[in-house]
Amino acid sequence: MEKIDSLIGQCAGADVVVLPELANSGYNFTSKEQARESSEEVGKGPFSEFLLSKCRQYGFHLVAGINERDGDSLYNSSILVSSDGIIGKYRKMHLFWNEPDFYQSGNLGLPIFDLGFCKLGMLICFDWIHPEVWRIMAMKGADLICHPSNLVLPGLCQKAIPVHAMMNRIYVITANRVGAEGDKTFTGMSVIADPKGDVIHQASQSEEEAGIVDLDVTLARDKMMTPLNHLFDDRRPEEYALLCEKK
Amino acid sequence: MEKIDSLIGQCAGADVVVLPELANSGYNFTSKEQARESSEEVGKGPFSEFLLSKCRQYGFHLVAGINERDGDSLYNSSILVSSDGIIGKYRKMHLFWNEPDFYQSGNLGLPIFDLGFCKLGMLICFDWIHPEVWRIMAMKGADLICHPSNLVLPGLCQKAIPVHAMMNRIYVITANRVGAEGDKTFTGMSVIADPKGDVIHQASQSEEEAGIVDLDVTLARDKMMTPLNHLFDDRRPEEYALLCEKK
Repeated sequence: MEKIDSLIGQCAGADVVVLPELANSGYNFTSKEQARESSEEVGKGPFSEFLLSKCRQYGFHLVAGINERDGDSLYNSSILVSSDGIIGKYRKMHLFWNEPDFYQSGNLGLPIFDLGFCKLGMLICFDWIHPEVWRIMAMKGADLICHPSNLVLPGLCQKAIPVHAMMNRIYVITANRVGAEGDKTFTGMSVIADPKGDVIHQASQSEEEAGIVDLDVTLARDKMMTPLNHLFDDRRPEEYALLCEKK
Repeated sequence: MEKIDSLIGQCAGADVVVLPELANSGYNFTSKEQARESSEEVGKGPFSEFLLSKCRQYGFHLVAGINERDGDSLYNSSILVSSDGIIGKYRKMHLFWNEPDFYQSGNLGLPIFDLGFCKLGMLICFDWIHPEVWRIMAMKGADLICHPSNLVLPGLCQKAIPVHAMMNRIYVITANRVGAEGDKTFTGMSVIADPKGDVIHQASQSEEEAGIVDLDVTLARDKMMTPLNHLFDDRRPEEYALLCEKK
């Protein structure tokens, strides 16, 4: 929280600020007990209160990865906070590596939140490799997908994000972590991509920093790839049944 | 056919050779009549015969875009040919720009062909922007997707192809056209990407050329992104229903 506090003032005046995955706990747990110690019930712990206080101080919305406790279960979650309180929550749907040792899989679907100035969805880290969820969120009207991350596979996600943005005509903000924790090194290079697939901000590989860009949501709401090709009207869902077949 | 003939000898010894979209007709038709004139019934016209003769001469398999006539209908198709004859056919599912003026949408699904040394699927040009079909073909066991193209949007597909390859752990060969036809300029930069998302061959923007690479299908059959993450077992199809909802 001290580190976030020292950087977040640079984002005064922004509408939406995105922090990395599990920003209240770190990532590389050695036991379920350790994971549990740093978890909190959303809206009822010190990290939720801290985020709310920052939203009230600066007037922005915050998206932050959070180690969420719900009864006996933990979730790798992302929350959307405004000065009015907790607006929404997403629980990571595709867990990475040994995360199932600590976390339940996400069970809240793929919600979109209408902030008036922008429709916002959240995905977390390894969700990046499943194009299904990016498509679904775009089809549900997301202008912007905020993507708190603790990426460790070198450069793969950072290469995919502009393509997700382009194929779905949306903005994506991937807020990644830098530095190391135990045997895991995080790859930094946080990226903001626009609906044309251009990278409009790229952070460094090793430094903690805040980057600010302007987004034009009208660009994300224009789904015409050519004057005759609407990205979603062109879809052939009757041909995609295999994607939805239960295991 | 003369142009293809002059280059294709360089591919002697290859297992699979991929040609661009609509390789027997050109792309930029001004009327349905013009499109019809250069079309042929698969397996029964001069282009099919030419491809078969080349397969017999060199012993390879050919994938080629073809302006296909079937009764009163035209299809923007891709065929797979061996020295034994026509093995398979794919009809473009997502038509681009004014193509619906000439072509019916593909109605043969997303077939995969097992050649013994490799399981092969075909997609055509603008299919690139629909991640659904790449995922489906990979789930159906494609090691390699051959992607005849006449790309005109600058650089977008070429950026997406390595990401499709990486997200699905498959090989992709995009054989694109160079040069211009009427008001359309084709973007070249044919690309071969491997299951790690690396570009293992990239052709030039403006020259007709043949490129040959070795593919290791065992790499495409290993769907473990980490020791604990199987790309397809990790999927959450119960959460993807929107992708398959009929219009």
